[in-house]
Amino acid sequence: MSTPTIATLGSHSCLQILKGAKEEGFKTLAVVLPRLEKFYRGFSFIDEIVKINSWSVFPKIEKKLIKKDAILIPHGSFVAYLGENINKNFKVSYFGNRKVLDWEGDRRKQRKWLEAARINVPREFGRGEKIDRPVIVKFYGAQGGKEYFTAHSQEEFQHKIKGFQGRKFIVQEYVIGNPIYIHYFHSLLFKETEIMSVDKRYETNVDSLGRLPLKGQKDIEIEPSFVVVGNIPLALRESMLVEALDMAERLVAASKKLIDKRGIWGPFCLETVVTPDQKFYVIEISCRIVAGTNIFVPYSPYTYFKYGEPMSTGRRIAKEIRIALGQNKLKNVLG
Amino acid sequence: MSTPTIATLGSHSCLQILKGAKEEGFKTLAVVLPRLEKFYRGFSFIDEIVKINSWSVFPKIEKKLIKKDAILIPHGSFVAYLGENINKNFKVSYFGNRKVLDWEGDRRKQRKWLEAARINVPREFGRGEKIDRPVIVKFYGAQGGKEYFTAHSQEEFQHKIKGFQGRKFIVQEYVIGNPIYIHYFHSLLFKETEIMSVDKRYETNVDSLGRLPLKGQKDIEIEPSFVVVGNIPLALRESMLVEALDMAERLVAASKKLIDKRGIWGPFCLETVVTPDQKFYVIEISCRIVAGTNIFVPYSPYTYFKYGEPMSTGRRIAKEIRIALGQNKLKNVLG
Amino acid sequence: MSTPTIATLGSHSCLQILKGAKEEGFKTLAVVLPRLEKFYRGFSFIDEIVKINSWSVFPKIEKKLIKKDAILIPHGSFVAYLGENINKNFKVSYFGNRKVLDWEGDRRKQRKWLEAARINVPREFGRGEKIDRPVIVKFYGAQGGKEYFTAHSQEEFQHKIKGFQGRKFIVQEYVIGNPIYIHYFHSLLFKETEIMSVDKRYETNVDSLGRLPLKGQKDIEIEPSFVVVGNIPLALRESMLVEALDMAERLVAASKKLIDKRGIWGPFCLETVVTPDQKFYVIEISCRIVAGTNIFVPYSPYTYFKYGEPMSTGRRIAKEIRIALGQNKLKNVLG
Repeated sequence: MSTPTIATLGSHSCLQILKGAKEEGFKTLAVVLPRLEKFYRGFSFIDEIVKINSWSVFPKIEKKLIKKDAILIPHGSFVAYLGENINKNFKVSYFGNRKVLDWEGDRRKQRKWLEAARINVPREFGRGEKIDRPVIVKFYGAQGGKEYFTAHSQEEFQHKIKGFQGRKFIVQEYVIGNPIYIHYFHSLLFKETEIMSVDKRYETNVDSLGRLPLKGQKDIEIEPSFVVVGNIPLALRESMLVEALDMAERLVAASKKLIDKRGIWGPFCLETVVTPDQKFYVIEISCRIVAGTNIFVPYSPYTYFKYGEPMSTGRRIAKEIRIALGQNKLKNVLG
Repeated sequence: MSTPTIATLGSHSCLQILKGAKEEGFKTLAVVLPRLEKFYRGFSFIDEIVKINSWSVFPKIEKKLIKKDAILIPHGSFVAYLGENINKNFKVSYFGNRKVLDWEGDRRKQRKWLEAARINVPREFGRGEKIDRPVIVKFYGAQGGKEYFTAHSQEEFQHKIKGFQGRKFIVQEYVIGNPIYIHYFHSLLFKETEIMSVDKRYETNVDSLGRLPLKGQKDIEIEPSFVVVGNIPLALRESMLVEALDMAERLVAASKKLIDKRGIWGPFCLETVVTPDQKFYVIEISCRIVAGTNIFVPYSPYTYFKYGEPMSTGRRIAKEIRIALGQNKLKNVLG
Repeated sequence: MSTPTIATLGSHSCLQILKGAKEEGFKTLAVVLPRLEKFYRGFSFIDEIVKINSWSVFPKIEKKLIKKDAILIPHGSFVAYLGENINKNFKVSYFGNRKVLDWEGDRRKQRKWLEAARINVPREFGRGEKIDRPVIVKFYGAQGGKEYFTAHSQEEFQHKIKGFQGRKFIVQEYVIGNPIYIHYFHSLLFKETEIMSVDKRYETNVDSLGRLPLKGQKDIEIEPSFVVVGNIPLALRESMLVEALDMAERLVAASKKLIDKRGIWGPFCLETVVTPDQKFYVIEISCRIVAGTNIFVPYSPYTYFKYGEPMSTGRRIAKEIRIALGQNKLKNVLG
């Protein structure tokens, strides 16, 4: 077999995925929309650019990718761009367990998974239950926080939800505490979960509200929004790393029972809110590489501890594939 | 010609400029005020310190610098320290286009430039126009955000502006969104614009207001101020990098029409506010290295993608000069 | 003498201390509670794990540590875990001056020290003095900000303090400005103070209050808390580095007069609030490595300037010990 090509969609964390792939000795390929072609051509570690006119025609380039022994690395924009259907059905080799998609995309399944792993979750309000505290309303499907809204009472909720008829959503208690996003990598080959890095999102406009003096907020009625536009690096208090890692290991173990024998592997993320008693409340699982890892190129403190050389999450993925190839176990890490 | 000396004023981003110059094989020199001498002597990569008693006597050391084949690297404190007059007229070699100074210093010209590059700018209020929304009032001349003030109505504006008679200023709509500062480098030699890094400023006291509970803000009337005391690293959402780079390329192209044939080159920065619809509003251009790049020593994710070795903006400048020297094109990058 | 072992307690900044020790050629050892054993076993740079059932039995493993020529590196959890008594009396070699403990732990001595070094401190309210402005109430003993509370009037203070009978505390003016934590290293061997890095803490819930819209804060009465759960990297405005370094040098000089001939050495931290006039108000000294240095593995911009290779504060400690060993001066840096 010739050297395979690591491929992904041109967006989200494509740069670190392909840079890491190149560092691990792979050929690299980005699938891009026409207006992004010029941008991605600017990076010398991307060997090939495949242009498509819209994400919906992705199935048409499948043969091409298969011929190149391409291994697709999914990232946070895969579902948003390709839809659940294409994601589940394309034939190109795919790093990670595709069955996880159902558990990530369905918020009730996600909650079941978290509970099976004995992870704290915020209270969720069922239909008809009276909202008696601050809540955040989230729609199904990863969209980078777009359209999320908060409400502080039953009335406010009912007023605001009117604009979203027919959409699936959950009503979650708004836990007051610090958002912290923990990035992991689970290796099937080494049967080991690693903490890759930790970040905090930079969300517009909610992260600029604090800069408005009181008067600014009184004069204009500002509705907070949660659109992620960047990521800020964090080190987590060391004594909390232990529980951070343990949560992830419990989640991996639970996935082997709930999803299938292999469960979840590769990069994933727990999106937490940390309260003053140092408890993690997990508000979401992302079952692939998240954009919060982008700030940790070439290193995070945690990957430096383990590897002592540049190691992004993108590179870690390629490293796993390279090791699997060397052990003739590539099939094991594809899903 | 002997190895030239890279020189700058002891402040702002002097450390990364001279460290980078040393890494690229240059001799290095810092011009410092007496009270800073001891501090800068602490860094072994600074070969020579020239002490002057006040910035106003800078012209007196010109001959000395010229004799050393010094190339001055301007940074954000040049105009504040030397004044526009000295900046435009000194004879020492200068990296960058000095004609850009007029366009940076005059807020109306700056706006003309941004509009020519089809870049979103916040609404600006002319004299006599009624202020009907939150605004921020900014004075001419880069002072790290000092004296900027906000107002929420015509009355508040008129009350607050009284203390600033005779000063030039603009009244800008206060766009509610996340401040994001994007650092670029335009290479005349390679005809290419690079994204070097992205940061968010840490401004006192405005970035501490959010830590005050409501009660804290009600009891004391706090006026926000915008004095930059630090910088925090950011990764920008990858899908927004494309427009971020495109804006800069349009700005470079516009500069060749508006300013002169060579236009702007070297490091510059777009100071943006990003709204929940992921639009950039540019509130200012800085036409030289900004302090936000200081946190990206030795790397940023973006310089690591391109160079794979330590590459700060300071080093990038020195690298450009070194390459120009090698191609016998030094004159091309001096202005 | 055989290669000594660098040892510390499994928590706080243990990872960077032992990683740095390994990089400088030492054997490494972590003392851990049983539930942390698995976590610390995950790092290959930790040669040995000594498990104890509770921190209070620490004296029982002293002989074992002494036999290994262990040098203990204290960090911010030493006093919290071992208590002042054990800290002052154990016989294992200890990096740093143990006499500093009294000056760190007693807030009145700390203030005397800061004043002797001509460092700005917030106003402090004596018993009986009327509280006429926002204050923060802090208890003795480093606990990562736990239990700190704010008050805005005499009444609020008296109401809130009721729950803390018999505890030692101070009442400090709440200076409105940006918290900035500056990390230093003072070398006895080189008689030199270095700035290692600068961070801002991420405190729950106070750093999430700004994300709540006004309405959120009105409906629920939220009491801010200051529990540190992470750290965010900062670059300090370069012109302020000079005073930042000078403060530390004055503090070191004052320590030689107040504490003993050797004074303070090794890592320490000034916890400051910076007001819009760019003044530092020091609210606390930490006389050992602080967790804010954890985000600067492998580098900070400042250690890169000086060393040009990976240099965390943990590694800097080990480097000092290695040099002392080479110069046959180990005793000089133990206290």
